[in-house]
Amino acid sequence: MQKRLILTAGINSTGYLADSWRHVGGSPLVFAEFDHYLRTTRIAHAGTLDAVFFSDHPALGADPAQRPLHSFEPLTLSTALAVAVPDIGFEITVSSTYSAPYDLARRLATLDHISGGRVICNIVSSFNPAVAANYGSAPLPPREARYRQAHEFMSVVGALLDSWELRRPADPQAGLWDPDFARPIGHRGEFYNVAGPLNVPRDRQRRALIGQAGASGPGLDFAVAYGEIIYCSLLSLSAARAFRDELHKRAIAKGRDVGSLRVVPGLVPIIGRSREEALERHEAVSGTGSEEGLLRRFARDAGIDYGALDPDAPVSGDLFTTTADQQRPAGFSQALAELARHERITPRQFVRRVEGGHRLVAGTADDIAADIIAWWRSGIVDGFNIQAPVLPDDLSDFVEQVVPRLQDAGIFPRHYESGSLRERFGLTQEASSDRYLKGSGSA
Amino acid sequence: MQKRLILTAGINSTGYLADSWRHVGGSPLVFAEFDHYLRTTRIAHAGTLDAVFFSDHPALGADPAQRPLHSFEPLTLSTALAVAVPDIGFEITVSSTYSAPYDLARRLATLDHISGGRVICNIVSSFNPAVAANYGSAPLPPREARYRQAHEFMSVVGALLDSWELRRPADPQAGLWDPDFARPIGHRGEFYNVAGPLNVPRDRQRRALIGQAGASGPGLDFAVAYGEIIYCSLLSLSAARAFRDELHKRAIAKGRDVGSLRVVPGLVPIIGRSREEALERHEAVSGTGSEEGLLRRFARDAGIDYGALDPDAPVSGDLFTTTADQQRPAGFSQALAELARHERITPRQFVRRVEGGHRLVAGTADDIAADIIAWWRSGIVDGFNIQAPVLPDDLSDFVEQVVPRLQDAGIFPRHYESGSLRERFGLTQEASSDRYLKGSGSA
Repeated sequence: MQKRLILTAGINSTGYLADSWRHVGGSPLVFAEFDHYLRTTRIAHAGTLDAVFFSDHPALGADPAQRPLHSFEPLTLSTALAVAVPDIGFEITVSSTYSAPYDLARRLATLDHISGGRVICNIVSSFNPAVAANYGSAPLPPREARYRQAHEFMSVVGALLDSWELRRPADPQAGLWDPDFARPIGHRGEFYNVAGPLNVPRDRQRRALIGQAGASGPGLDFAVAYGEIIYCSLLSLSAARAFRDELHKRAIAKGRDVGSLRVVPGLVPIIGRSREEALERHEAVSGTGSEEGLLRRFARDAGIDYGALDPDAPVSGDLFTTTADQQRPAGFSQALAELARHERITPRQFVRRVEGGHRLVAGTADDIAADIIAWWRSGIVDGFNIQAPVLPDDLSDFVEQVVPRLQDAGIFPRHYESGSLRERFGLTQEASSDRYLKGSGSA
Repeated sequence: MQKRLILTAGINSTGYLADSWRHVGGSPLVFAEFDHYLRTTRIAHAGTLDAVFFSDHPALGADPAQRPLHSFEPLTLSTALAVAVPDIGFEITVSSTYSAPYDLARRLATLDHISGGRVICNIVSSFNPAVAANYGSAPLPPREARYRQAHEFMSVVGALLDSWELRRPADPQAGLWDPDFARPIGHRGEFYNVAGPLNVPRDRQRRALIGQAGASGPGLDFAVAYGEIIYCSLLSLSAARAFRDELHKRAIAKGRDVGSLRVVPGLVPIIGRSREEALERHEAVSGTGSEEGLLRRFARDAGIDYGALDPDAPVSGDLFTTTADQQRPAGFSQALAELARHERITPRQFVRRVEGGHRLVAGTADDIAADIIAWWRSGIVDGFNIQAPVLPDDLSDFVEQVVPRLQDAGIFPRHYESGSLRERFGLTQEASSDRYLKGSGSA
């Protein structure tokens, strides 16, 4: 099956940007109202987007000036939305550090049945001490241990999801199901001991698609072992090419078919009737208020004195370094460093290229559509996770103004295809099953 | 507010009885189909029942001749049903032994928001080694330790559900929410350390109703500390009176208002056009096939030789004893012993009084309605959890034939009242909040 453009919509309460709550049309308290998520999902559905994507941290931030980035539990919320909205998929974020494999496998299989195979499970290893404090007294494990745990977690979840098939009709003489096809998994490992089998039979798309968002070395190894939809921050085409090459190199080294990977970077669209209007909206919704505000924030994030910043001198890639156990996604720092290394770029340009960690495209609907079409035709990426700054308004603008241009260009469907997400994406069960077995063996 | 009859519908895959899968109209594989649960819930809704009740064990039995009693995860399934079916409540079973308090509180609050306050959470302390084996290598803790853990679990969940209120509108100057009303809980205990606050604000009914189903001594202490809807097996009015008196005595000793407790025993209705037809259906759906089959099962369950059984001699209450760590609900054994002690009853009568652990009423719709009316008018119980033997057919018969008789008798509403379940049941937030604080203090 030919690859096709994947477009998903990131949903983070009032929008992708921290200041979005000051810009939502109604009350900013919509972050705790089901109707807000329903309305947003229906807008995404009107644009035939492939999925809505719920990131997650199970913790409330301490700063009341920040909106709660995450509130409702994503799998529960997605289940409700799946009943109310057809066709569209649901990408839910789950921590491999703080979930029981049996629980996750069971909930995933339940939602996959209910939704008819519309689930992508985005596995993250938690990096937030506030999350750790809600799940016990142990400090957050170091990154390396968290990824080792994540590997074992996935291999157990995969084995559970495969542990029970209903292969023949019930037989009043022999029983309701065939015990040959309900196999205990008998897993005994470093982090988990799980008997199995799962009490939910194999689901419609056989197994939820697996998303993965870590771009560090251990994150990439995890991606090629289990991931299918790879989320990342890619700020330039050259950085995207380098990332894809590295991902494919690691995949090939593990015997993974690179055709079963989809690279889907984040994209923050800010749409104006003119480029100037888009830049003004960027200053407003970013909370910086002006170009100077953007530059001041850049200086602060890079740890340099604003007074010493020359906004028109090239940025050094060394400004953005990653430490092994930093408390933020390694991928974001890496992406910033890559951008500075790959291009001769000034702070004034830089602040218009990235927002909230992801690639910013501020301009007219034509500008944004042209950018997406160019990236897609490069063949380097498989799609984009659209991070609308303010929800639902910016997503609505994207669906009404940008999506039709992609459809007119023939790179995005006007209607939903039938079947599970796995089928629509051409990520067949056979490839998936092989991969899981390999992943399991190497864990 | 005056008490009102509570009627809930127990939903266990193909029905309450183990042999139900051989009697369902379509394929017995409906246990893994969302439409089966949707259809069943819609039937319950047509009867204005208060809630559907999902019991649960997160494990697949090893015997293929037994249908899976539990498959889809109850909270996820209930979320889907809550979107599809209005008015009706959802009682979900959750293990205090194998859930993280932060996860449960968050999912409960999410579902309570989505459903508009239609959740009852039935807390159980797992007693099944097959469940324990899916959640680690530790053996199942002894009953006493599990209840100690359950107390701490509830006090943490209660504190989390109360930890964040949205007390004033967002203020662009001061922030989105008021930090005075988002309080870390800072819980450090024997089983859990949880920082809080929860990242979901207080829900519509303020807190999900708490169900409780353990009838042992520790179970009753847990019930009076936290329970609001008390599920139990009560096989005679005299046993029901004794149970209620014991529950009230313990409640008063703890300073609990007995008016905030609702006693809702199970009831297995088997409806026939005549009593004879009902008894034949009982023999069929129980899987015993005949009265002799029922008597043979009775002898086996009591651990006596069938050849030595006199079906017409009174049963000794000592036949059914409870051990401290038995692998089945203590409440069922106790109920059997109580029945034998309170009434001079023969095995032939006994086998028609109880089925699957709960009180059986086999007869015409008039018989069953008269029984429910008599129990309700006794003032001893607050309602019944209807355990239809085969789903959805037996629930459909109950709704079509028995419910109208209860409505005609003026003891059950013809239409849903508005508001949350807590409001409908007259279990006000004030009483609940006091109780939780007391429970928390004594844990």
